[in-house]
Amino acid sequence: MALPGAAWADTLVDNVTGIRVEAGGTVERFAAMLIDDAGKVKRLYRQGEKLPKDADYRIDGKGRVLLPGFIDSHVHLSGMGFAAIGLDLSDTTSLPGALTRIADYARRNPQKAWIIGSGWNEVSWGLNRMPTAAELDAAVGDRPVWLMRADGHAGWANTAALARAGITAKTAAPGGGRIIKGADGAPSGMLIDAATSLVESKLPAPLPEERDIAIRKAQDLLLARGVTAVSDMGTTLLDWQSIRREADLGRLHLRVAAYAAGVDDMVVIAGPGPSPWLYGDRLKLTGLKLYLDGALGSRGAWLTRPYADVPDETGLQRLSGTQLRNLMSRAAMDDFQVAIHAIGDAANREALDAIEEMGGSYPGDRRWRIEHAQVVAPEDIARFGALNVIASMQPHHQVSDRTMAEARLSPDRLAGAYAWRSLAAGGGRLAFGSDAPVEVPDVFEGLADAITRQDAKGEPFGGWQPQEVVTREAALAAYTAGGAYAMGADKRFGTLAKGEWADFVFVTVDPMLAQPATLRQGRVLETWIAGHKVWSANDAPTDMPQGR
Amino acid sequence: MALPGAAWADTLVDNVTGIRVEAGGTVERFAAMLIDDAGKVKRLYRQGEKLPKDADYRIDGKGRVLLPGFIDSHVHLSGMGFAAIGLDLSDTTSLPGALTRIADYARRNPQKAWIIGSGWNEVSWGLNRMPTAAELDAAVGDRPVWLMRADGHAGWANTAALARAGITAKTAAPGGGRIIKGADGAPSGMLIDAATSLVESKLPAPLPEERDIAIRKAQDLLLARGVTAVSDMGTTLLDWQSIRREADLGRLHLRVAAYAAGVDDMVVIAGPGPSPWLYGDRLKLTGLKLYLDGALGSRGAWLTRPYADVPDETGLQRLSGTQLRNLMSRAAMDDFQVAIHAIGDAANREALDAIEEMGGSYPGDRRWRIEHAQVVAPEDIARFGALNVIASMQPHHQVSDRTMAEARLSPDRLAGAYAWRSLAAGGGRLAFGSDAPVEVPDVFEGLADAITRQDAKGEPFGGWQPQEVVTREAALAAYTAGGAYAMGADKRFGTLAKGEWADFVFVTVDPMLAQPATLRQGRVLETWIAGHKVWSANDAPTDMPQGR
Repeated sequence: MALPGAAWADTLVDNVTGIRVEAGGTVERFAAMLIDDAGKVKRLYRQGEKLPKDADYRIDGKGRVLLPGFIDSHVHLSGMGFAAIGLDLSDTTSLPGALTRIADYARRNPQKAWIIGSGWNEVSWGLNRMPTAAELDAAVGDRPVWLMRADGHAGWANTAALARAGITAKTAAPGGGRIIKGADGAPSGMLIDAATSLVESKLPAPLPEERDIAIRKAQDLLLARGVTAVSDMGTTLLDWQSIRREADLGRLHLRVAAYAAGVDDMVVIAGPGPSPWLYGDRLKLTGLKLYLDGALGSRGAWLTRPYADVPDETGLQRLSGTQLRNLMSRAAMDDFQVAIHAIGDAANREALDAIEEMGGSYPGDRRWRIEHAQVVAPEDIARFGALNVIASMQPHHQVSDRTMAEARLSPDRLAGAYAWRSLAAGGGRLAFGSDAPVEVPDVFEGLADAITRQDAKGEPFGGWQPQEVVTREAALAAYTAGGAYAMGADKRFGTLAKGEWADFVFVTVDPMLAQPATLRQGRVLETWIAGHKVWSANDAPTDMPQGR
Repeated sequence: MALPGAAWADTLVDNVTGIRVEAGGTVERFAAMLIDDAGKVKRLYRQGEKLPKDADYRIDGKGRVLLPGFIDSHVHLSGMGFAAIGLDLSDTTSLPGALTRIADYARRNPQKAWIIGSGWNEVSWGLNRMPTAAELDAAVGDRPVWLMRADGHAGWANTAALARAGITAKTAAPGGGRIIKGADGAPSGMLIDAATSLVESKLPAPLPEERDIAIRKAQDLLLARGVTAVSDMGTTLLDWQSIRREADLGRLHLRVAAYAAGVDDMVVIAGPGPSPWLYGDRLKLTGLKLYLDGALGSRGAWLTRPYADVPDETGLQRLSGTQLRNLMSRAAMDDFQVAIHAIGDAANREALDAIEEMGGSYPGDRRWRIEHAQVVAPEDIARFGALNVIASMQPHHQVSDRTMAEARLSPDRLAGAYAWRSLAAGGGRLAFGSDAPVEVPDVFEGLADAITRQDAKGEPFGGWQPQEVVTREAALAAYTAGGAYAMGADKRFGTLAKGEWADFVFVTVDPMLAQPATLRQGRVLETWIAGHKVWSANDAPTDMPQGR
């Protein structure tokens, strides 16, 4: 069904239940779309409007719902790919089950010098503590094993891996990290945030072809979810090279705004300033990703007051105030955008303070982004609007984190937690995403989360902190137009406005009308980018892709 | 005069004295060329053939000579650019003159922490020795100074630069390099081959924008010489990124086959195998450049017998036999082409031995290249043909090196020196180039050198080792079709055959007919790539570009 390449051929997609939404939340319905030869929207037609008779090609939408392609504003492309092609523990429901999976994988891969995996979460196992090296040794004792937690902020090593990394009772954690130790002082096998680098620096490097396979796999998973554009958060030089190789071979369909993993990566990738949009607006080195703190689950989020459940800890400040400002200046002076990971309320405040201070030196439309913005002090919420800051948030994190967040923060400190509606009401700009591979990049689930603040079982009844739900319009906008704005791609794609790329999906549900439970079960039928069909449920080997 | 972009528009270039040549040396003359909309040759017309009347555009050649665009098979793009935008000593004719130039440059650039330059040659100064740190100190004593010799195989440091590099009487040279020391054991200021890295590792790194400017400058210089394609010998990751940035912005006109500076660069640039031809056949990471020895002038060339003028030296073997074979295997296993710098007869023999041994493991059309192939033992000459090896040679090196080569080798060892005709007669494939910035990339000079083995003054009378001149046809082929073959671009460009890119030049002389002295004075009038005019003498600020 891909369009042929003859010159000046227009394509009419008609008989659709079309829905587009502006960044502000204004929804418009349409019944047909005319696409020009380049793959851009030429015109939308409302129900009853006269359709052109002379279009060269016609696609019958068969009445299906057509939406703008989804934009996921926070993914880790190579992480998604490697998680999907490696040992994936994301669907394990108990520690013994996970250990069996790990042992099986090691047995089936005798040639692997290291067993590397990801996706585990002790909460999903019903375990009220972190697992240990000794437990892992029982599953695999002959080789080092290294397994990242689902949130990417903690790693589980067996004794052989600790030995390879030279971690003993005497080892001090690097700044911004923690080595969990037992009562006897010996390392428990659990490394938090920056301490994970002690093991990661010892891992065998993937081959270039493995990196390319991972990037392809990530694209496949996203296209199957209807995602047509992403912000890649923490792009390394090697990631970039793999993405360009795919693009050079004409295999990059997904649109990728890349945020470099560090200043060195940023400069070696893009040099004196952001790259142009390349490959027909499919790839751009846009900005710099910075980590100001860790995650709430592993108590790495930097809080203004101690953790409710560990009163002598306030989390990890991973950059000093000076480091943060220097890095932001380094990026901004050459017009790179800055995206700051900030989860705790202290981290969010520090990020906002720094953005406010930068405003004088770097005026104009800078589109400062805060990634996650999970816990914001109530008095800081309005600053997102005042400083025109993009809140890049992941609705499903709220659902996954709810119980954990209550434990870490205590119920009286939840007013600014996952505060979508308040942030938007204060003028902050919402951009939604998944944080894949931390969460599955399922936009229907995200939309249902966003309008209910309930999980798939409908819990908690009435929604968690329900004052922070957003409207259906705002939720869809945050997954489309808001994402395009966040990556500086407004006017290029995201709203199906005239002149934008014809990136769209046919889906099974009307997100403006479906009951939440139905919306959550929504599925993508076809994914189109620049007027070309790039994924179809009919062609897929199963109706849903495996893994994340 | 660039062609407009309307669809299906053909362009007829008529009224030309057209000349094309096949790799084998067969010359064909034509009077007109039809170019299709994509910029490829649709058809050539001989004198008197009926021309099409319906071409959309017509370019009147006004009777001028039209040749295929020149291909320079050995340049250093970033080196050319940096030499041209920095302190250029290539036209200095005495040591005092050079010192005055250096002192002036330092005075005019008080903000530069280092004074960096290139292009000097003690032979051009009539100096029978290398210059010293003390002499340089007299010109610039307040800052470190580092000046590469024209051949790129020796560097001249002042005392401040030696101090920055920590080079003292006790410093041992790294393998493959030499630190010249005086009678008192103190370093003289002259560092050879691998020893240059002792200072180079201390130089301030150029900014990305400076690298981009250097690449642009190199392209400008080459287009002004009618060079439409090059083999870039020793491309680093940062070079590649700059070239891609120019291409991403639509500013890369020149066709570049890049040979990576090392395995690390090769893998991080291209990953699992050579890149495709990118940007309409304008850029490809083709292979790997290896240095097996140094240069003859600095006695780094690896000889089978001692240097005639320093009897205890046989030059530098920069890779062991095992290293060479391992690196060649690493490249060949992933289908990267291998280009081996070999100047001395021992280096050429070792390269041929290794190529012969590799043949079993890596059969097929591998296009092994030997770069320079300057001194080949007579008994090894036929091996180029037997092993189907490309001899990538630089005619002007013979002219520049003549006296020096006689001193280094003695007259009885010159039979296989710069042996173009013998190598070709034995079946070796010639690809000519300049080694810019070591020599000016002037193809007319190279053609005249190649057919006469005399310099611009006509010396020596009758030519130097005149049995090694090549025919006009062979010389032009080595600068066009032979260069395309060497970089694996045959059928894409190089001969103006139907279906190839329309890369051509209008020039002032007919290289098949002009007297050598006239040929040497030939100039390019216009340079066209893919049917677009990319340089014209009429638009240039002066009739010849400055510098190299």
